[in-house]
Amino acid sequence: MSGDSTAQSGEERLIARYFKPLAKHPGAFGLADDAAAITPPAGCDLVLKTDGIVGGVHFFPDDPPDTVARKALRVNLSDLASKGARPLGFLLTLALPQGIDDAWLAPFARGLGADAEAFGCPLLGGDTDRTTGPITISIAAFGAVPHGEMLRRAGAKAGDRVVVTGSIGDAALGLLLRRDASAAQRWDLDRGARDWLEARYLVPEPRTAIAEILRTHASAAMDVSDGLAGDLAKLCRASAVDAEIAVPRVPLSQSARTALAKEPALMETILTGGDDYEVVACVPAGKVEALRRQASAAGVVVSDIGAVAKGQGKAHFLGADGHPLVFAQAAFSHF
Amino acid sequence: MSGDSTAQSGEERLIARYFKPLAKHPGAFGLADDAAAITPPAGCDLVLKTDGIVGGVHFFPDDPPDTVARKALRVNLSDLASKGARPLGFLLTLALPQGIDDAWLAPFARGLGADAEAFGCPLLGGDTDRTTGPITISIAAFGAVPHGEMLRRAGAKAGDRVVVTGSIGDAALGLLLRRDASAAQRWDLDRGARDWLEARYLVPEPRTAIAEILRTHASAAMDVSDGLAGDLAKLCRASAVDAEIAVPRVPLSQSARTALAKEPALMETILTGGDDYEVVACVPAGKVEALRRQASAAGVVVSDIGAVAKGQGKAHFLGADGHPLVFAQAAFSHF
Repeated sequence: MSGDSTAQSGEERLIARYFKPLAKHPGAFGLADDAAAITPPAGCDLVLKTDGIVGGVHFFPDDPPDTVARKALRVNLSDLASKGARPLGFLLTLALPQGIDDAWLAPFARGLGADAEAFGCPLLGGDTDRTTGPITISIAAFGAVPHGEMLRRAGAKAGDRVVVTGSIGDAALGLLLRRDASAAQRWDLDRGARDWLEARYLVPEPRTAIAEILRTHASAAMDVSDGLAGDLAKLCRASAVDAEIAVPRVPLSQSARTALAKEPALMETILTGGDDYEVVACVPAGKVEALRRQASAAGVVVSDIGAVAKGQGKAHFLGADGHPLVFAQAAFSHF
Repeated sequence: MSGDSTAQSGEERLIARYFKPLAKHPGAFGLADDAAAITPPAGCDLVLKTDGIVGGVHFFPDDPPDTVARKALRVNLSDLASKGARPLGFLLTLALPQGIDDAWLAPFARGLGADAEAFGCPLLGGDTDRTTGPITISIAAFGAVPHGEMLRRAGAKAGDRVVVTGSIGDAALGLLLRRDASAAQRWDLDRGARDWLEARYLVPEPRTAIAEILRTHASAAMDVSDGLAGDLAKLCRASAVDAEIAVPRVPLSQSARTALAKEPALMETILTGGDDYEVVACVPAGKVEALRRQASAAGVVVSDIGAVAKGQGKAHFLGADGHPLVFAQAAFSHF
């Protein structure tokens, strides 16, 4: 072979231009090797998570590329936070259709880099491929917890309180608004309220700031990605307990309250829709106040929404009248 | 909510049926939690790799599902081996179009499980999604090396020998045969030769068995996935050396030799085609014999194909007449 072997391929150029600037961790080797290497923190377990998002399924093809990137990373960070893990880094697999150009890649990489920085979770490596299908982004994220201390779905005990971070249902309403803009009028939402709900769908807020607080206070936790009702039921099954939730205590944003006042049936969407990326946790009653106080100091509101009781793995949602709500579908499922 | 919260979603059923049986590692929590946890081996670095394969791009839609699964895992195992890393486990992201049913998923999971077992690389977690595009499989694999000892592309020194495992070019010829079955006649291949070449394309052979031998003997290494010519050039650039390869010493299978005898121009395909998943390494001259002997004892043939010299990062391939070959495109690139 001759001198042409010094030429970079298109893939190398794309990586060098957009993703190498994000790979600041020394173990990423500037994305110029076949793999990354990290030295695990002493005494820690690695917490490993992968989650993919697909154009037309998890995001709209015309969503801003920077928010697509941020969502792809944040859905993984949300899981790490709910397991009590501190982020260490992530790997990115990107399958791109023809026609994805600099105008898409530049803001995508910018959004990804901004969040990698904000959450202390550097890009360690990746892979870019062509696809004949929609943009497909798969991220594998790694975190650390002290040995044996990953928060599990299992572990909730009768007598624990059920708590949830932030507000529930915003993203599900934001998705409805993305699909049918006229709903804003029906729900009496002003521009600010609509923007808030749509932003909650576009860019979730992983609760990384309180990962350690959760780990040291909760007996069980998971992130709420497929709807509070269905996800809490999963936690109950894993812990072999029941939960009894007081629906009026479920924290709602002002925007969600406004919509709900006009259309009370939205409560089902709020409790069973996906994409919240909040944390639901079970916490010994005596630790709830400390958890709330410390979380609040870290900027995260934690609400007590109910109790854990002996049972066989069911989550009961009781309305203001004390009667259980019945949902058509408890949780989102792709299959 | 009522008792319906105990019902599993379709996604949970799919995972429980096909993938939970593969998740034997205790840190996979039977795929019934949001993340996996592993305790890193003491004194080791984690080696992290992700590689995706896309239907219609990296495999044919009608390829047997078990070989698709095995290829998806093996392309990652090949990278770990070339970095000197022992596999620890992997995460799987699967995006499936409508119409993928048990008839596809059952053999897919079977093939994946067989290789996870064979290479000691258990499934730790995953994510399944719908896609409107082709089947997209992304794997993130993790391995371990003693602290600071990951084999790099950088590190080759003038005076090293260049070695390569197995045989080169089979998969590229196998791909041509998949595209144009009539080539078998043109190249005078019997059924066995054709099957061999196609099998090399379908199911690569990661050199996990000699990962540690490579780590303790080589000064630099990478896996050959985008063609020997281009990949060796990448290694030369990373090491800031030149390499001079004697093309007649490049190891070819009997099947590839037969085809090449009928169509000498295939040498370019052999040296620049992708999908070899062999390892190219630079090894101090005094260590080559020990490496070859130990690799041979582990069932892997290692061939000495040339020398490393001072230079600026070029790989020269010299024909039998001593003149450098010139290739139209040194390496495969999706972009």
